[in-house]
Amino acid sequence: MNIDELIAAAKTLSTPELSDALDYFSLPGVVYGIKPVTVDRAFVGTAWTVRYIPVDSHNPGSVGDFIDQVMPRDAVVIDNAGRTDCTVWGGILSQLAAHRGIAGTVIHGVCRDTAEARDANYPVYALGNFMRTGKDRVQVAETAGVINLGGTRVCHGDIIAADSDGVVVLDIRNAEKVILRAMETSRLENLITDDVLAGMSIKEARQKHHYHTLQRNPLIEEK
Amino acid sequence: MNIDELIAAAKTLSTPELSDALDYFSLPGVVYGIKPVTVDRAFVGTAWTVRYIPVDSHNPGSVGDFIDQVMPRDAVVIDNAGRTDCTVWGGILSQLAAHRGIAGTVIHGVCRDTAEARDANYPVYALGNFMRTGKDRVQVAETAGVINLGGTRVCHGDIIAADSDGVVVLDIRNAEKVILRAMETSRLENLITDDVLAGMSIKEARQKHHYHTLQRNPLIEEK
Amino acid sequence: MNIDELIAAAKTLSTPELSDALDYFSLPGVVYGIKPVTVDRAFVGTAWTVRYIPVDSHNPGSVGDFIDQVMPRDAVVIDNAGRTDCTVWGGILSQLAAHRGIAGTVIHGVCRDTAEARDANYPVYALGNFMRTGKDRVQVAETAGVINLGGTRVCHGDIIAADSDGVVVLDIRNAEKVILRAMETSRLENLITDDVLAGMSIKEARQKHHYHTLQRNPLIEEK
Repeated sequence: MNIDELIAAAKTLSTPELSDALDYFSLPGVVYGIKPVTVDRAFVGTAWTVRYIPVDSHNPGSVGDFIDQVMPRDAVVIDNAGRTDCTVWGGILSQLAAHRGIAGTVIHGVCRDTAEARDANYPVYALGNFMRTGKDRVQVAETAGVINLGGTRVCHGDIIAADSDGVVVLDIRNAEKVILRAMETSRLENLITDDVLAGMSIKEARQKHHYHTLQRNPLIEEK
Repeated sequence: MNIDELIAAAKTLSTPELSDALDYFSLPGVVYGIKPVTVDRAFVGTAWTVRYIPVDSHNPGSVGDFIDQVMPRDAVVIDNAGRTDCTVWGGILSQLAAHRGIAGTVIHGVCRDTAEARDANYPVYALGNFMRTGKDRVQVAETAGVINLGGTRVCHGDIIAADSDGVVVLDIRNAEKVILRAMETSRLENLITDDVLAGMSIKEARQKHHYHTLQRNPLIEEK
Repeated sequence: MNIDELIAAAKTLSTPELSDALDYFSLPGVVYGIKPVTVDRAFVGTAWTVRYIPVDSHNPGSVGDFIDQVMPRDAVVIDNAGRTDCTVWGGILSQLAAHRGIAGTVIHGVCRDTAEARDANYPVYALGNFMRTGKDRVQVAETAGVINLGGTRVCHGDIIAADSDGVVVLDIRNAEKVILRAMETSRLENLITDDVLAGMSIKEARQKHHYHTLQRNPLIEEK
């Protein structure tokens, strides 16, 4: 699948389904602690990475104008090292990102102007929100590199999927096999749901569809 | 009162009113840190308890099919020891529980497939939500026993009341006296509200109805 | 500007804009960790301060009837030292405050009867909500004094502004200059937004309006 096909396929899946598929291949990729803070709207995009560091008071850099380079298929993914005392995303960026069709923003840190993002129906996923600017508190260290999103590795161009349950990162090198596996998991979970809602006991339905090992790596089983 | 009458009476009360009545008898029962995470819908039910433990990698148990045994009057109450890194409740369970009229679920831990539970209007109260499965991370240690819900003791069959302000557990042996006392508190608080909205000063209204000691155990007063 | 004019002007501003203006003058005033917990409704008012301390079991005071003295232009601001195990604001107070037109309540601690406040459309900003009363757990130590709101100084009569992104306190002695500066920031940020939505690159629009130093104290720049 090409990148557009991967994104289209991932859009049909939930983060739990993708997480189960990551488990199946014993791969990392789930992001801990990041939740929707503006609108609870799912998105999938390719990671456009930004890394902030504490400001150099002798030579304060800027918070960057990287947004000009971000394309509609992208999701902005910002590593601010989990800082919650100053923001790295605000109202102008939300409005512009929504206007340009950018998929969404994920921050290991906090955003501000939440109400403006909500009005623009633009999804920002973060540790929370606060009102104090990052200007003169942090500065851009690097864009389009490899970042640490609270312990999860994200490379520029990886696939980012986000929904109510949080954020999952698919290493672009594994994305296709993970997505295909998640589609299979999803199909089987729907069969279980159909069976139990039709009156089968959950025990029977789960055994029939091998629920308890759906996410278990068969190679590990063979050990 | 029989169990159906106790539940019907508790449904007319808020968790603050029940908490005040627990205070009145110097009883424990308030649960710290657990909030509505799917829909903000109050419920009352009898505790159907489940306790998870970390998986035994030599002999991985399962996450259980206990839901087949849970009755409509029950609330599922899950002790996962406060773990937030893997889930013990998901979309199939929410849909099935809603379908079968189960009262709600309370987890000292996290759930997933939040959007599905919301669509089914099924209330899950938890420490939060995340997307990673508990399968092969935890396993059922016991069902229908005594559990520790973040420091609060819950026995199978106790009464569970949950609303926007959190979760309260009524030991079934004390439930009737606590509920009767809460009904009296509620009556007096409504009188205070009526008096102040009708123009009485809050000081006067509270003195008239003994607000400041409504939840104080009269035995303690006598000391 | 007199106090009514200051409040009217602050109502046109967001907490991010006020925070940037505080930064500009190197002033404190942002409050960390306090969020809307009943309704997400912005307000501005003058601080009516209350400080609680742990109960003296030999001489338990009361949780106070101070609300009788609070005026419509006021916001109740409560220092409970960040305690989240017992509440200092509940349903009777929310209903009465809404009825009397009080601006809102800010608590470094927790509130209860969230649903009643929501029904009354009354904004309570706090660390969270819980159901257990503060009666016989805390008592009023002082009203109308100086309080510590999680590290932020609040004097009786200071201006409090609250919205989705949190709470900002304006020392009444600085309020006018901060508000005037925030109005200027707001004007410039709107020009940037207009320019970028009209097609200008964000880099160009930000340079044109000096975005990256909008909140920077020009005196510091000159160093």
